[in-house]
Amino acid sequence: MKTLKLKNEIKKIFIKHGLMNNHASICANALINAELVDSSSHGLSRLKMYCDRIKKKVINPKPKIKIKKISNSITKIDADNSIGFVAADIGIKQAIKNAKKTGIGLVGIKNSGHYGLSGYYAEQAVKKDLIVFCFTNAPPAIAPHGANKSLFGTNPICFGTPTSSKIPFILDTSVSMINRGKIRVAAKTGKKIPKGVALDKNGLPTTDARKALAGVQLPIAGFRGSGLAWMVDILSGVITGGNHGGKVKDPFDDFTGPQNIGHLFITMKKNLFVNNYNYRIKENIKRIKKLPKIKGTKKIVYPGQNRFYRYKKNLKKEIYIPEIIKLDIEKLSN
Amino acid sequence: MKTLKLKNEIKKIFIKHGLMNNHASICANALINAELVDSSSHGLSRLKMYCDRIKKKVINPKPKIKIKKISNSITKIDADNSIGFVAADIGIKQAIKNAKKTGIGLVGIKNSGHYGLSGYYAEQAVKKDLIVFCFTNAPPAIAPHGANKSLFGTNPICFGTPTSSKIPFILDTSVSMINRGKIRVAAKTGKKIPKGVALDKNGLPTTDARKALAGVQLPIAGFRGSGLAWMVDILSGVITGGNHGGKVKDPFDDFTGPQNIGHLFITMKKNLFVNNYNYRIKENIKRIKKLPKIKGTKKIVYPGQNRFYRYKKNLKKEIYIPEIIKLDIEKLSN
Repeated sequence: MKTLKLKNEIKKIFIKHGLMNNHASICANALINAELVDSSSHGLSRLKMYCDRIKKKVINPKPKIKIKKISNSITKIDADNSIGFVAADIGIKQAIKNAKKTGIGLVGIKNSGHYGLSGYYAEQAVKKDLIVFCFTNAPPAIAPHGANKSLFGTNPICFGTPTSSKIPFILDTSVSMINRGKIRVAAKTGKKIPKGVALDKNGLPTTDARKALAGVQLPIAGFRGSGLAWMVDILSGVITGGNHGGKVKDPFDDFTGPQNIGHLFITMKKNLFVNNYNYRIKENIKRIKKLPKIKGTKKIVYPGQNRFYRYKKNLKKEIYIPEIIKLDIEKLSN
Repeated sequence: MKTLKLKNEIKKIFIKHGLMNNHASICANALINAELVDSSSHGLSRLKMYCDRIKKKVINPKPKIKIKKISNSITKIDADNSIGFVAADIGIKQAIKNAKKTGIGLVGIKNSGHYGLSGYYAEQAVKKDLIVFCFTNAPPAIAPHGANKSLFGTNPICFGTPTSSKIPFILDTSVSMINRGKIRVAAKTGKKIPKGVALDKNGLPTTDARKALAGVQLPIAGFRGSGLAWMVDILSGVITGGNHGGKVKDPFDDFTGPQNIGHLFITMKKNLFVNNYNYRIKENIKRIKKLPKIKGTKKIVYPGQNRFYRYKKNLKKEIYIPEIIKLDIEKLSN
C-alpha cells in the first residue's frame, strides 16, 4: 500500500480507538517509520496490540499529560498511561528545547508505554543538531547474570550525534543478543531464530522462537551485558518513577494494568567544548572508514547509516504488509 | 608492604618527578586504590610508565589547568597535559559541584592522559549521593566492526548510583572482551590469555598475550560492541576537544607527544523525578537478588559489589607487589 495512504489508514484506526487527531498522527508516523527502516518488529505487527490495550483500558487514549519544569534544563513528565509514542514525542521535544536553552537537557518520563524505536526519538534531537541519549526499559526478557529467570527488558542503549552529513549517527542497540521483536515476528511467521541467542524455559539452548519467548534471552557478553541492562533499568525506571525490577508488563500478554514504562532523555549541544564539532566528527568518521577491511566487508558504516539507506530505499516503494497483518488492519478499521 | 607506607613511597616518587604535593597525593591514592580493588593492571604496574612519560616531557608535572565555567551545570577543562589522575580528580569534583547546584552536571576535559579506573571517579560522585556517567577514550586496541586494524580503545562505559547501602552500584565495563591492562600484566608475567578475546597481527585467534598486544582485541558482541566503543570515542574525544579516531597514543610505547585523552563526566541528583529514590533502588536490587539462580551461583551481585568486598579484604592485609614491580619502585625512588 502507498505510504501516505497507509499512514492515513493507521491514523484513522487510532482516532477510532479514541485518540485525539494529533496523537493519532504521532502514533501512525512512528509505526510507519519503523516499517520504512525495516524494523517491522516495531511496526504494524504491533498495531493490534496497541488497540487491544486501549480497548482493555490499560492504555489511556485521552491522557492528561503533566509536564513539570524542574529547571530550564530538567523536566519531569507524568504521561498518565498514554500510548508510549505520544509521551516520548512530547518528551524528546522538551529535551530538545531544554538543551537549546541551556546547553543540556534532561527529561524523565513515567507512566508511559512501549514507545517503539529509541532511534526514532534520537533522530529528532540529532536533526536539531544535538547530541542525545535515549533510555527506556521493557518487559522481562533477559536473565540477570547468575539468574535463571528473565527480569531485565532488552533495554536498548541509544546514542545519537550529528555527523555534518545528512545521515545521522544513531546507535540503537539492545543489550540482548537479539531484539525481542524479531523473535516475536519469527514466532508469528513460523521462522527459526539463530543459535546462541536464547534458552527455553528449561534453560536449554533453542532456535524455536515460541520456546524462546517462553524462556530467557541471553544478554550480550555475559555480566557486561547484564550490567548494561541493569543500568538501563535504573536510568529508565528507578530514576523516573516508572516500573522497574521486572515489573513492566508484557504489552502482548498482560492486560492486568498499564505498563508504566519510564524513559529518560539526555540532550546536549555539540559545540559546548569545541567550536569545530562538525569538522571533528567528520574527521573521526573518515579515519574509521579508511581502515583496511576484513574479507567480505566492502565498506565500514557507522551506526544509523544502513538504517538511513533502508529508509530512503523503502520510501520509494510500497510498504510490504504480510497477510496476517493486513487482516489486523482490516478488522481494526471496521 | 603496609598500605600507608607504600602510598607515601609512591607519593614521594611522584614529587621527585616534579609533581606538586597535592597532585602527587592524588596519583598515589589512585594507584593504591587500583591495587586494593585487585585491578593491578591499573595500579603499580603503570608507575614506571607514568614516570617515564614525565621524564620524556609528554606528561606535564606542573600543569596550568584551565577551568572554564560555561554555565552553573557545564564546565570545560583544559588539563594542559597533566597526568590523567589529576585532571580527572579536578573534573569529577567539578561535576559533583555542578550537579549539587543545578541538579545536573556536565564536565568535558581535554589534554589529559590515562586516568586509571573510571569506577574510582564514579565512586566519588556516588559517595556524594549522585548518579554518574564517566567516559574516557584510550589508545587503539579494538578493531571497528568490518575493519582488520585496531582503532578504538577499550573505551569503558561507567555508570554509578547510590544504593542506599554503603556499597555503591558501579558498572565499569570496557567494551572489549578483556581489559587491555590484563593482557599487559599477562605479557609481563608470561601468562596466557583466554580464547576468543584477541587476534594476532595476522588476524588469527591467539592466547599469547604478547601476540595479542601486537594484534587486535575483539569487541563484545560484534557490531554492538563496536558501536558502543565508537560512541565512547565520540563522547570522550570528539566532544571534549581530546584526541579521537585512533590518535590517542599508547602510553607505554609512544613517547612522541602527549596523549591528549578526553574525559566526559555527567552527574545528576537522584531525587529529580522521585522523592523516594533510596527505597526504589533498594527494592530494585532486592528483586533481582531474590531471583532463582543458575547452578554454581550462590548469590547474584550487582556491579561494584565484588569490587567493594575485595577492597575491604585487601585493606586488612599488605599489598602484594611482584618482584619486577618492586624493582621499578626501588629504581624510581633513588
